[in-house]
Amino acid sequence: MDDDVARAFVPGHVTGLFSIHRTDDPATTGSRGAGLALDDGVTVAVEPAETTAISIDGDDGSVEAVERTLSALGVVARVEATTDVPLGAGFGVSGAMALGTAVAANEVFGVGYSENDLVRTAHVAEVEAGTGLGDVVAQARGGVPLRLEPGAPPAGELDGIPAIAAVEYLTVGDLSTPDVLAERPHRITQAGTTALERVRDRPTLDRFMDASRTFAEDVGLLTEDLLTIVEDVENAGGQASMAMLGKTVFALGTGLTDAGYDPERTHVHPGGATLLRE
Amino acid sequence: MDDDVARAFVPGHVTGLFSIHRTDDPATTGSRGAGLALDDGVTVAVEPAETTAISIDGDDGSVEAVERTLSALGVVARVEATTDVPLGAGFGVSGAMALGTAVAANEVFGVGYSENDLVRTAHVAEVEAGTGLGDVVAQARGGVPLRLEPGAPPAGELDGIPAIAAVEYLTVGDLSTPDVLAERPHRITQAGTTALERVRDRPTLDRFMDASRTFAEDVGLLTEDLLTIVEDVENAGGQASMAMLGKTVFALGTGLTDAGYDPERTHVHPGGATLLRE
Repeated sequence: MDDDVARAFVPGHVTGLFSIHRTDDPATTGSRGAGLALDDGVTVAVEPAETTAISIDGDDGSVEAVERTLSALGVVARVEATTDVPLGAGFGVSGAMALGTAVAANEVFGVGYSENDLVRTAHVAEVEAGTGLGDVVAQARGGVPLRLEPGAPPAGELDGIPAIAAVEYLTVGDLSTPDVLAERPHRITQAGTTALERVRDRPTLDRFMDASRTFAEDVGLLTEDLLTIVEDVENAGGQASMAMLGKTVFALGTGLTDAGYDPERTHVHPGGATLLRE
Repeated sequence: MDDDVARAFVPGHVTGLFSIHRTDDPATTGSRGAGLALDDGVTVAVEPAETTAISIDGDDGSVEAVERTLSALGVVARVEATTDVPLGAGFGVSGAMALGTAVAANEVFGVGYSENDLVRTAHVAEVEAGTGLGDVVAQARGGVPLRLEPGAPPAGELDGIPAIAAVEYLTVGDLSTPDVLAERPHRITQAGTTALERVRDRPTLDRFMDASRTFAEDVGLLTEDLLTIVEDVENAGGQASMAMLGKTVFALGTGLTDAGYDPERTHVHPGGATLLRE
């Protein structure tokens, strides 16, 4: 391996349902919920640098969760991310960038953290940046993660739905995470708690999609444009819901194609974040 | 997906160091320790059948951990396993078969268990069969698993060394797991506890290999034939140790090749057990 750069892959993650849990400690703050880790994800390359610089698909930018991750590890680096998924559309790109940065920086700088240490570092950075509550721990696990207890390891607890599937998605606009979280936390937590219990009762993809669909309507986030697409999929015999939080509809199998749309196509990604072989 | 058969892949797993922890409950009985999940693993196909039948690489046989797993799930099935690794050589084949059977049977029979439920079912079956204590939970996680607390979820606790690497191995004979575990549990637990603390202090592959090597000598399992191979690797500038429990030497990178041997070659497998796409 080239000693001067390390690369990590982190799956994308769409949350279907969630509830919010805040404490005084960002490591135990987080969300309960359920989602899908996706083959379409983020690749992060980290190399030592004189000043921290961050780019996404070649465009320089500022990503607070990444900057906080580098600070927490005590390193200065150039971070280059490339991604298959749209930004700000509910795929957990900021969480993926934070976690990928942690994993790759640990390798290239010889930080000597364990996997749980790195997940906790990225989760804390993401919570402090205010850009996410549950993507990092879900992206560290992969598959179809169930977030049973909020927060990073060792506080957070995960399970998973043992399933793989083709997934399609269609993004029709932007939605800001902090705004939505601030507006209706209690309604989200009530609906999310009920929805997660339904999934735990029967941890299958079918139940997950059904509980996600109900959750999206219950919390009032399923706007007219998204609802139309979801109903089109249902009328074509499929299952669809909305990515929390983004203006994205996701469907199992070929649900969107069957309904006449031209979606992106990916799969459930069975593993979590990992270093890439050089 | 064909409704009549489901397939799962489970990575092989070599333990480098461990300690034994028995309770009255097989779900909380297990081992602490550290090992490597490997690309060379076990693929398990499960289909409903009139009577339970098990084969490995085409040979019919009896694998108690698999039979117990099917019983626990309440199903009767034909289980066909194929594997890249030698049997009885310290690669956790019985654990992999139990876990792969659980994951694939859950899918094909629509049992409706969560991932943690399936891991616990396979772990309990393996402990009750007396063929392993920690492989199942390690194989469910993948990568370079650290077993911090013994047993299946939610009791067991895992972390991991964030690393990928090429791995070589050479098997020179058989070693029976139950015999060795019965003979020297206290010596193993003392040496294993010390070794795991050393790895937790510095969770890197280098430290893992060093702690495994020390552990193997401390517990008196590194017989003359294995020690000769390990020392040959070290003299060639590499790192090697012994798979617990098998007459297998494993080395990082090209350690065995560099020492003049003709080993099998694989890699650390970053993910855990998973259903395979049909």
